[in-house]
Amino acid sequence: MKIGLAQINSTVGDFPSNAKRIVSAYREALDQGAELVIVPEMALVGYPPRDLVFKSGFVDKCLQALDYLKGEIGAVPLVVGYVDHNEKQGPGKPFRNGAAFLVDGEIRDRIFKTLLPTYDIFDERRYFEPSEQCQPVEWKGRRIGITICEDVWTEDFLHRPLYKRDPVKELMEMDVEFILNLSASPYHLGKGEVRRELLGALAEKSGVPFVYCNSVGGNDQLIFDGGSLVMSSEGVPLMEMPPFDEEVAVAELFEGSPSHSGARSSRKRMHPDEEIFRALVLGVRDYIHKCGFETACIGLSGGIDSALTAAVAVEAIGADNVLGITMPSPYSSRGSVDDSLSLAANLGIRCETVPIAETFEAVRGALAPIFQDLPEDVTEENMQARIRGLYLMSLSNKFNHLLLTTGNKSELAVGYCTIYGDMCGGLAVISDLPKTRVFSVARWLNRDQEIIPWNTIEKPPSAELRPDQKDEDTLPSYEVLDEILEFYVEKQLSPQEIVENHGFEEKTVLWVQRQVDLNEWKRHQAAPGLRVTSKAFGIGRRIPIVQRFGR
Amino acid sequence: MKIGLAQINSTVGDFPSNAKRIVSAYREALDQGAELVIVPEMALVGYPPRDLVFKSGFVDKCLQALDYLKGEIGAVPLVVGYVDHNEKQGPGKPFRNGAAFLVDGEIRDRIFKTLLPTYDIFDERRYFEPSEQCQPVEWKGRRIGITICEDVWTEDFLHRPLYKRDPVKELMEMDVEFILNLSASPYHLGKGEVRRELLGALAEKSGVPFVYCNSVGGNDQLIFDGGSLVMSSEGVPLMEMPPFDEEVAVAELFEGSPSHSGARSSRKRMHPDEEIFRALVLGVRDYIHKCGFETACIGLSGGIDSALTAAVAVEAIGADNVLGITMPSPYSSRGSVDDSLSLAANLGIRCETVPIAETFEAVRGALAPIFQDLPEDVTEENMQARIRGLYLMSLSNKFNHLLLTTGNKSELAVGYCTIYGDMCGGLAVISDLPKTRVFSVARWLNRDQEIIPWNTIEKPPSAELRPDQKDEDTLPSYEVLDEILEFYVEKQLSPQEIVENHGFEEKTVLWVQRQVDLNEWKRHQAAPGLRVTSKAFGIGRRIPIVQRFGR
Repeated sequence: MKIGLAQINSTVGDFPSNAKRIVSAYREALDQGAELVIVPEMALVGYPPRDLVFKSGFVDKCLQALDYLKGEIGAVPLVVGYVDHNEKQGPGKPFRNGAAFLVDGEIRDRIFKTLLPTYDIFDERRYFEPSEQCQPVEWKGRRIGITICEDVWTEDFLHRPLYKRDPVKELMEMDVEFILNLSASPYHLGKGEVRRELLGALAEKSGVPFVYCNSVGGNDQLIFDGGSLVMSSEGVPLMEMPPFDEEVAVAELFEGSPSHSGARSSRKRMHPDEEIFRALVLGVRDYIHKCGFETACIGLSGGIDSALTAAVAVEAIGADNVLGITMPSPYSSRGSVDDSLSLAANLGIRCETVPIAETFEAVRGALAPIFQDLPEDVTEENMQARIRGLYLMSLSNKFNHLLLTTGNKSELAVGYCTIYGDMCGGLAVISDLPKTRVFSVARWLNRDQEIIPWNTIEKPPSAELRPDQKDEDTLPSYEVLDEILEFYVEKQLSPQEIVENHGFEEKTVLWVQRQVDLNEWKRHQAAPGLRVTSKAFGIGRRIPIVQRFGR
Repeated sequence: MKIGLAQINSTVGDFPSNAKRIVSAYREALDQGAELVIVPEMALVGYPPRDLVFKSGFVDKCLQALDYLKGEIGAVPLVVGYVDHNEKQGPGKPFRNGAAFLVDGEIRDRIFKTLLPTYDIFDERRYFEPSEQCQPVEWKGRRIGITICEDVWTEDFLHRPLYKRDPVKELMEMDVEFILNLSASPYHLGKGEVRRELLGALAEKSGVPFVYCNSVGGNDQLIFDGGSLVMSSEGVPLMEMPPFDEEVAVAELFEGSPSHSGARSSRKRMHPDEEIFRALVLGVRDYIHKCGFETACIGLSGGIDSALTAAVAVEAIGADNVLGITMPSPYSSRGSVDDSLSLAANLGIRCETVPIAETFEAVRGALAPIFQDLPEDVTEENMQARIRGLYLMSLSNKFNHLLLTTGNKSELAVGYCTIYGDMCGGLAVISDLPKTRVFSVARWLNRDQEIIPWNTIEKPPSAELRPDQKDEDTLPSYEVLDEILEFYVEKQLSPQEIVENHGFEEKTVLWVQRQVDLNEWKRHQAAPGLRVTSKAFGIGRRIPIVQRFGR
């Protein structure tokens, strides 16, 4: 049986466009000989719709789009992810996360998601009532198990025994011959490998093939990486679709067919730095375009963060659509402006220079009667960053560029950044990349030729907000800081555990903990940042601002 | 039986202080003759702890505090809300929302929450495994039903049949003689009345008294209003505790006692504007103090929003601790500065004047080579707001004042505010008050004497960012805008429904809808705002930025 997988990019709430995209992908699959076509979880809706589902008319509009869609479907079925009302009698949540089996202009079956993830970035129990019983769908003499995303994430090796139910097991007990999975599974580094391992283990254990169709595209903080695949009943990947791109492909599921014997996917793994770069490019492109922008602007400091951000933006929307602005202060080194201009030349983007000295003097003059003889401190450093933020937002307002924020995860973690200053912008491109990762992605980017000036990569990082300032005057070395942050933020270990089990200096660990905790308020007001690790600041990490644990 | 209710104010994660506060309240109740004492849900933890519970050591520290606590408890039991590990075998969430029955230095019983709210501001399924069976606790020959918050929110009139279980019914079938409820039920206008109605209906239906002990205090966006009460088995409130204040009180539960016969609470209802004012005062005080600040600063525009914000701040932390700053521009009317100075005089706060003209010129000069001859537009308006934000943050940084943001809900809804400008600040005091409510609270505040200058209340609202600007040049009248927002944001009606069922002009409704939707990105970066309606922006409303529903 030839299954068509349509790994498509939906936009949240854009039912008409999503429906059209599904129809065109369905037809492409038909042209490739598909006998059944699947698209991702909520392909008709875009994932995650979040509280939009509570808006009056949202689910009805989705059902209208489903009605349109079924009219476009002929003898070859389409399995499509959508959102439905909960029509079950009795108490429960108002909606269902569903998959509709469309054929011959009709909705032949509706399958609902059984396991509703409610952790990390997921909030499905907020909206959806789970399916109470798994049922195979019969088609052309085959019994098909249809599952939605989390429904298959039950293997023991995942070390998260969350659910009493196991939809794959239930379906296997009903003798299904293969299992389809419609997913909207967001990216983080290494997620592809986890999925392959999971699906391989499931297929082998169940002895049936798995067809896994995942979303691709960016929605707010989340990047969906695609990487849809077909796993043989021996747990061998028969076909793997590309990460970070839309694609429609067809795979033969069962043995005996010419395409099957000895089939095995030959897709190569990406270098982790390439994977992250491509994820960010997709996230930036979709954020900008789905929000209705065409162009972006970026403050260039001569440092590596803004340089990498600009390189991502250029790859995402083209050099002609990216404006760089360099804003030297009296404390800026000559090298900083030169490095920004070299970067702009390498990338082929326009770069404007707007000095901040006069505005800085005007602000200090205005506040002098109040500040009197008080010594300069972080106030004056923040002033400079905020004047730059003001310039950048003025350019954004005047020319309708989306301002991209350039901060990395390490500085956002410890608050080594200025709120309303360098934190200004609509999207934080690299805010989930620890500084050490920023360096490695930059080096990967320069693998064949200099894109980010080598001087930018090799000079010691500096905020240049006072004379001869270096990041490591204030912060631990980034190697140490990033490791501690990995333990404290991502693994959520206590400072005691980090000191005792991982050999870091207590003073440093406590300083990092305190900075992370104290700066929750800044992150609360941060631009959404593209998620590329398993624990990004923002949507999947919800820490109160007012709290005293560990103080 | 004399029940002591300790309506206390906990701080999230501050186990040592919360435990000490519980002990002192317990002793106070003993002094008043209590034979059993209850404190609110998660009194030991502070509510909501959110993802802090995932931090290694968090729950263990809570259990250590519980161990300390039990040692302080003698022959009179204490029922205390805390968080526990889930020790149940098999799959499930890692934690429990619990109530411990402490007596004679021991933990005699542990009761777990059955109904876990996962909607609006609540995310309990993210963390907690529900109780699978309700069990009464026996004490001094009485069978007591112990419930936690949502466990009693099952009455039909609430129109939200969410749960299959009904803990009150289950407990009644086990012949309990009264029901205790430990709550952390957040405030919104009118919530007290809903609770009284609910508890009255439950008590009457069950025929047993209910003892309801609610948290008081602010944690981030949420204000807990207390209002603990004892409801007789006839559904008559025997005792009601004050809203917005800590208190310890004792009530006799059963008839025949002198305190019971004819007992009926005589607490008077507050005026809605007073209720909101007092809620905001509590929210501001707790946010400032729990974050470790002592003083606040506020930009005074001469308008009503900043005036009300300043009045709340003065009531919360005292006039000596509040600094006003007026920042006139070339477009400011003379009246604006005068009104700010009158307000400062009325409130007894210091007010500084810092003009923005020179900085405004410096910024325009710096950008002139890029802007060239382009006409002035909203860019230059935002510049002025952002220069003010920069000044305010500079004062905040230099003197360690918490900057309070002054925007109201109407302007935040339609984006009639400048991100990184007037949206700067650590806490948005009135961001859940529609403009019409801002006016009514201001008038209530002036009921006996002028606190907010009458000129501020009576002049037409203006941002004063260009000559002769008035809000209603850009916006519908606030009466119309606020009603449409109530339908669109709070009730989540579609524009079609608002036009067809409520008689508003289609053009206006579509304009409002579009502005609300387009400005999601600004609100994503807004300061946390105190919640006083049933649907505030922020924690209980989660709308994607990238989305095209209704566009």
